[in-house]
Amino acid sequence: MSRTYSVIGSGALGGFYGCRLQRAGLPVQFLARGDYETLKTAGWKVASKDGDFDLAHVDVYPSIDSLPPADVVLLCLKSTSNHEILAHLAQTIKPGGVLVVMENGFGIEEEVACYVGRDRVLGACCFLCSNKVAPGRIEHLDYGTVAFGELSVDGMPVGVTDRMKQIAEDFGQAQIEVQLADDLRLARWKKLVWNIPFNGLSVILLEETNQLVGNPSLRSLVQTIMNEVALAARADGRSIPDQFISTMIEHTEQMKPYKTSMRIDFDERRPLEVEAIFGAPLRWASERNVPMPVVESMYRELVFLDQRNRAHLANP
Amino acid sequence: MSRTYSVIGSGALGGFYGCRLQRAGLPVQFLARGDYETLKTAGWKVASKDGDFDLAHVDVYPSIDSLPPADVVLLCLKSTSNHEILAHLAQTIKPGGVLVVMENGFGIEEEVACYVGRDRVLGACCFLCSNKVAPGRIEHLDYGTVAFGELSVDGMPVGVTDRMKQIAEDFGQAQIEVQLADDLRLARWKKLVWNIPFNGLSVILLEETNQLVGNPSLRSLVQTIMNEVALAARADGRSIPDQFISTMIEHTEQMKPYKTSMRIDFDERRPLEVEAIFGAPLRWASERNVPMPVVESMYRELVFLDQRNRAHLANP
Repeated sequence: MSRTYSVIGSGALGGFYGCRLQRAGLPVQFLARGDYETLKTAGWKVASKDGDFDLAHVDVYPSIDSLPPADVVLLCLKSTSNHEILAHLAQTIKPGGVLVVMENGFGIEEEVACYVGRDRVLGACCFLCSNKVAPGRIEHLDYGTVAFGELSVDGMPVGVTDRMKQIAEDFGQAQIEVQLADDLRLARWKKLVWNIPFNGLSVILLEETNQLVGNPSLRSLVQTIMNEVALAARADGRSIPDQFISTMIEHTEQMKPYKTSMRIDFDERRPLEVEAIFGAPLRWASERNVPMPVVESMYRELVFLDQRNRAHLANP
Repeated sequence: MSRTYSVIGSGALGGFYGCRLQRAGLPVQFLARGDYETLKTAGWKVASKDGDFDLAHVDVYPSIDSLPPADVVLLCLKSTSNHEILAHLAQTIKPGGVLVVMENGFGIEEEVACYVGRDRVLGACCFLCSNKVAPGRIEHLDYGTVAFGELSVDGMPVGVTDRMKQIAEDFGQAQIEVQLADDLRLARWKKLVWNIPFNGLSVILLEETNQLVGNPSLRSLVQTIMNEVALAARADGRSIPDQFISTMIEHTEQMKPYKTSMRIDFDERRPLEVEAIFGAPLRWASERNVPMPVVESMYRELVFLDQRNRAHLANP
């Protein structure tokens, strides 16, 4: 029998992966709030660079308490909403099942583990360019690779487990490229190496990725920031070679001009994932006296910009 | 006989101090380019918190080559225009006279000294809030203190000289508050402690001083930046106590909300003084392996923002 999936958060990320899994024949339950009625009546529409498709019938639930337990729960919210569902997560996982943290950020698996148990948490770094353009409508622009990894109990790499392979098999069936990371922590640091400079500067300077790597002054700044993150990773026992950084910059140059997720959140006046992407690694580093001066200065600016950006919502 | 003065640069700074000196009865020659006709026919109009006044007759010259030599030459350009006049400066100073660098920035006295001789250069840090609101019209909002100091030959403090006292006497007669700095270099570092965070962040975040010290996250960033500048000053043998930094932040809190000169330049799409205020101290620090990571990241952003801000001028 197929493993059952739940997707918590029907946005650009959860919508895309959930739809791909359902199209591949896997049983998928979606938790949706704002989009519940649309999904119930009209289903999903996915416009993708790999081919458009619709899913007319969607198994959708309006609240986490109404969601039946599943074998694999994909946590696909913005990390800024985690506090609303953390206490209800355990009930969404079948006995023997797992929860996969698909969100951006640092240390979220540890937080989730406090609620569902350390042995039921996987993490996944998603390399996906997609947007939710309207309720029930996903636009998939580029990429899609998912790197799965186990949460470590002692900080050491866990290696590749059977359940990782099983989930990877389902994703592969859904034509999603997968990687099996034997060290989730390293995968998270590597993702931060990209996320911190590009998400941060895209909001501070209001530019897309092409300017951030195309302008010589900013490219040099991006490199400085990446080095700072790599130094912190090194203090965590994870080596990120210089070659990785230069390759990442080159790849970004070759990408289509891309609006980062933080920039999209900013433009939509949604809360920014400042704490997950900046605050959490900074606090980790600060507790170990690892200096991250440039990342910290970006953090301070982003906290302010996020407040200013949403001030009109508090005082309409 | 009175000392004669020349004011090179008839903007918010040179206009204000030159007018005050002329009102006090001192002979003042102005070099003006864009404002030449206005000053020739209508003179200066100064609206000041200390009392408004007009100067109907102004001794104004349209080019540096037409400017007769003076005893005291006040260099009041934006540092971004220095390259246009450096080679002509020597001829503007009478034998036995001096040139006073009144501009913002670091190391400008040294550069000017290459053209006019090291023994004919003074520096002055100006603490002035004023704007040129139209040709020939100055609006003086607040402050006005000038701190004079001698250019050192060996990096050590020079002390207070007779010619500093004489010029200070003239400024005092013009009701300008003066300070006699026995160490110009220390005065320059102290000015950078304010200029670097407030000028930089005002452009990067598009805010005035009140937000930069009023928001807790930004206030903490301002303090970090000030500490970074103070550490560089320490490497230059200049001690800037913590107390100086906290006092400066408190004073800025008590100031009326103020648009920095760099922000005004940015809004007017004029070149920013990025090299004088950021680039020069950074290069100094870099040559001595003194880390200024946050200041450097601001520098990179400002170089880009300056380019973007004026890109339409290059490609109309």
